[in-house]
Amino acid sequence: MHSFEELSALLKDKLAVSHFPTHPSTLYRPADYFLGLGGKRIRPVMCLMGNELFADILPDTYHAAVAIELFHNFTLIHDDIMDKAPLRRGMQTVHARWGEPTALLTGDVMLVVAYDYLNKIRSGHLHSIIHLFNQTAREVCEGQQLDMDFEKAEQVSMPEYIRMIELKTSVLMAASLQMGALLAGAGEQDQQHLYAFGKNLGISFQIQDDYLDAFGNPEKFGKQIGGDILADKKTFLMVKALETVHQQQLRELKMIPGANSSEKIAQWLATYKACGVDQWAMELKEQYKNNALVCLEQISIDPARKKPLLELADFLIQRDY
Amino acid sequence: MHSFEELSALLKDKLAVSHFPTHPSTLYRPADYFLGLGGKRIRPVMCLMGNELFADILPDTYHAAVAIELFHNFTLIHDDIMDKAPLRRGMQTVHARWGEPTALLTGDVMLVVAYDYLNKIRSGHLHSIIHLFNQTAREVCEGQQLDMDFEKAEQVSMPEYIRMIELKTSVLMAASLQMGALLAGAGEQDQQHLYAFGKNLGISFQIQDDYLDAFGNPEKFGKQIGGDILADKKTFLMVKALETVHQQQLRELKMIPGANSSEKIAQWLATYKACGVDQWAMELKEQYKNNALVCLEQISIDPARKKPLLELADFLIQRDY
Repeated sequence: MHSFEELSALLKDKLAVSHFPTHPSTLYRPADYFLGLGGKRIRPVMCLMGNELFADILPDTYHAAVAIELFHNFTLIHDDIMDKAPLRRGMQTVHARWGEPTALLTGDVMLVVAYDYLNKIRSGHLHSIIHLFNQTAREVCEGQQLDMDFEKAEQVSMPEYIRMIELKTSVLMAASLQMGALLAGAGEQDQQHLYAFGKNLGISFQIQDDYLDAFGNPEKFGKQIGGDILADKKTFLMVKALETVHQQQLRELKMIPGANSSEKIAQWLATYKACGVDQWAMELKEQYKNNALVCLEQISIDPARKKPLLELADFLIQRDY
Repeated sequence: MHSFEELSALLKDKLAVSHFPTHPSTLYRPADYFLGLGGKRIRPVMCLMGNELFADILPDTYHAAVAIELFHNFTLIHDDIMDKAPLRRGMQTVHARWGEPTALLTGDVMLVVAYDYLNKIRSGHLHSIIHLFNQTAREVCEGQQLDMDFEKAEQVSMPEYIRMIELKTSVLMAASLQMGALLAGAGEQDQQHLYAFGKNLGISFQIQDDYLDAFGNPEKFGKQIGGDILADKKTFLMVKALETVHQQQLRELKMIPGANSSEKIAQWLATYKACGVDQWAMELKEQYKNNALVCLEQISIDPARKKPLLELADFLIQRDY
């Protein structure tokens, strides 16, 4: 059994090799650049953890893990285009550096190379793995589309918002765990419990992300605080606040001029506090974490093997970066 | 054995069903719309033809054919974004109608659904099919990137240009044929000859496309004549002309104001004629067609079975639309 840090280290070597041809460099250099920006590699580590819950890590699992990380990076490159985001992890996004057409193609080719890695799987599970991967990929696209639809919507209900987050964020975490379990030969029931664990954890993770964007320590978080507020992004906090505040407050908030950004952030943060949205978010996060733990308990394996997943849950929802 | 028209009709039913979920409609309606615009469905028909060259058409081949058509449409949706094209087949492009973010995601999800169709393949060939599909998909991305690189380049050599066309256009036609052959259980050598047939034919096809854009009958071609010239697109004709014309002529051509588009088209067409580029293109097209036929001859099967492919070759390079 390995901890999150140990599995991250194991994966680092697998991800450090180049995954792309060299020519044309105008296409593949941006791909190498973006993957090189790093990140926490949470999803591929989850794939290894799902595997190790049931068995020693199999070579096929590394192929699936790399495919998952490539897929995740493909979605980030395309999301950055859609969001017109200039920075990712403190560095220029692909479209900001090489233009939108190249960023679009770099994302496309990264998705294709993800399938190359899946196709390296030698066990009889290839078909089931591709099935799960495709279902997840479709759902992530659906989540991103709903996220964009919600940006234009006046009001979004909490159940609608949670469903969007499930699609956009949770299902990939859930499927990463399940792919590992599937490759280890876990039973269908255990796979479903592990998937449900990941899905609940993913929502907790996103609540924490939204919370940090509003109330985090900018030095640790590595991003500007209030970025979501400035971008008029619907977040857990925003959706809840819009449900809670009085119409009069809402009108005042909407009149805050976009130009004076620090004032806008300050007023929204004050509203969040006034409505108790910060406290509510921390409670909701715990609730989803507890749901996740119930699912984890139901998996029919020696509880000692579940320890790394418990640590992962704590890390993901207590992190301050 | 079936003709191109008969296979098109067989395919029509397979393509007419919806390939996507219904929700969210903001994502999937654009996908249905774009696929519904039709087109000649050349590539999936080639997949069926590659299969029928060696055996009766197998159910798996329809899955591969639909995957190929979805892949092709994914590339068109993304190419239209990159080219900022307002129209495709006389209708609004996806990004023109629903915006770039939705067009980007619609393309992405269409690629994922293409892999869903591949994953329906039940024979032992799934692994080889995905391998060939991925290699082709990567090459098509590379071709599109090179095409964009060439737009900015002052001069492009004919071998570089032909290599770009191979990647962007030919390999998908070649792979479509080969996938059909592979599913029919054809030998490796025959598969390679068929691939080479498709690759040469693809270049002929593109030369005809470029020729029609400059010298076609606008009513039959269904597009404005000279569109490539107005868009400053590198084509077979343009690359050859730039190699051929005198520096003085070139300076005059470059000084043609973009505003007066009919004058610009007329002057370039006159240059093409003066350099004999039109005649040259027709000869090059025949040369690649002949290369293709030599490859077809080498396939170790009753020549009578090759008849539909010979008809396809004639159709593709003699068409006036």
